[in-house]
Amino acid sequence: MQPIKVYADRRSQPSRAVIIFCRVNQIDFEEVTVDLFKSQHLTPQFRKINPLGQVPAIVDGRFKLFESHAILRYLASVFPGVADHWYPADLFTRAKIESILDWHHSNLRRGAATLVMHTALAPFLGLTTSPDAVKQAEKLLSQSLERIESVWLKGGAKFLLGSPQPSIADLSLVCEIMQLEILGDDVRDRFLGAHEKILVWMDNVKKATSPHFEEVHELLFQVKARMLSKAAAANQTSEPSTKHKIASKL
Amino acid sequence: MQPIKVYADRRSQPSRAVIIFCRVNQIDFEEVTVDLFKSQHLTPQFRKINPLGQVPAIVDGRFKLFESHAILRYLASVFPGVADHWYPADLFTRAKIESILDWHHSNLRRGAATLVMHTALAPFLGLTTSPDAVKQAEKLLSQSLERIESVWLKGGAKFLLGSPQPSIADLSLVCEIMQLEILGDDVRDRFLGAHEKILVWMDNVKKATSPHFEEVHELLFQVKARMLSKAAAANQTSEPSTKHKIASKL
Repeated sequence: MQPIKVYADRRSQPSRAVIIFCRVNQIDFEEVTVDLFKSQHLTPQFRKINPLGQVPAIVDGRFKLFESHAILRYLASVFPGVADHWYPADLFTRAKIESILDWHHSNLRRGAATLVMHTALAPFLGLTTSPDAVKQAEKLLSQSLERIESVWLKGGAKFLLGSPQPSIADLSLVCEIMQLEILGDDVRDRFLGAHEKILVWMDNVKKATSPHFEEVHELLFQVKARMLSKAAAANQTSEPSTKHKIASKL
Repeated sequence: MQPIKVYADRRSQPSRAVIIFCRVNQIDFEEVTVDLFKSQHLTPQFRKINPLGQVPAIVDGRFKLFESHAILRYLASVFPGVADHWYPADLFTRAKIESILDWHHSNLRRGAATLVMHTALAPFLGLTTSPDAVKQAEKLLSQSLERIESVWLKGGAKFLLGSPQPSIADLSLVCEIMQLEILGDDVRDRFLGAHEKILVWMDNVKKATSPHFEEVHELLFQVKARMLSKAAAANQTSEPSTKHKIASKL
């Protein structure tokens, strides 16, 4: 059996979810870096892997697939070594997980990714930012975090839906929230500080997938440090900010 | 066996997809209307069905579920009478369908639903519109239509992925595009006119699910007529527009 190829950029939250999943489940895979900052996702070569030019994407023999949730479902289904809790065969439990995965796209992801794009990435990528979009994204992000806590983490749930072990939904959503790191500690804490259950849950997912979780997130923290350093320079501060030196709580 | 309950408003595109699916597959169900214009989705009573206050939602015995794609997957999985093509057991085919379903949320749905909300519904619901949001939505909608055509309908495909029969992805995406009807014929044609393959595919989905498709869409056309009539009145036109009298091509 040839290893599957995972085309990814670890700075992308769905890419990290797929890589962590493969590692935790000991799936034989080769990681192929597609550098988003160098627009490698838009090359004709990569378009042959994913015509939509997005990461992550996988190639398993002659089979190609993109969209991280679809990839996670596929990997959980075709690799017999993947424990059932990741994507339960029980139709009722699975349906509840599907519901969270679907909800994620238009809520948590739309809020968090839009906020990160418009506030942290746009200045570095030369994109136009919109104050309206930022405001909407902040509102959606706050609402999404509140809903995760009140609906899927209610009671003393260790993982979503009160499960004692994580599913692909836990992994996908936590990787999304981790992206807030690059907004800096203050902004991250402004959104997450009031959500004790979310912080505990994130820690549970991290522990359940350790040390892969931390290793795969290393690049994110490097990006964070560089961005905060650049932002400090742009603010004409002669002393570089010390904020990025503070260890993340997550 | 008690019939399942489907909580829906036929003016919502994912509600229509679920109702059409149940009808086509002869699933025993009771439709419970949740009137979005009367904010019935936000009542404490409905929050017991779906704490997030969105339609569609289903109740099957003691089991509750929301998010239309999750509902469609569930129904296709638990009702043995549902033909395999709707949600194939083959893992490779299924994965490709999942990829489209996931893509839908952040692309076609985000484009089409945002456009409809900001241009057609906002004035009637008293919501603030944003020209920036409209511009972004139009761009995303155009790009999404182009991608459906070039990636999933390439060649002479009758349905997505070249399938000879429809899947839940065909139904979900076509119901989404149908929502453009309430923007009026001119706007609908501006987006769809150049996409012959999309028009043929929509017609194929309609035929494969007839007469349920037309019946379940009747309310949408009534809303369209009322909206165009109100818009004409607001434009201080003494002669009512005849545009809404033109039969839809779809």
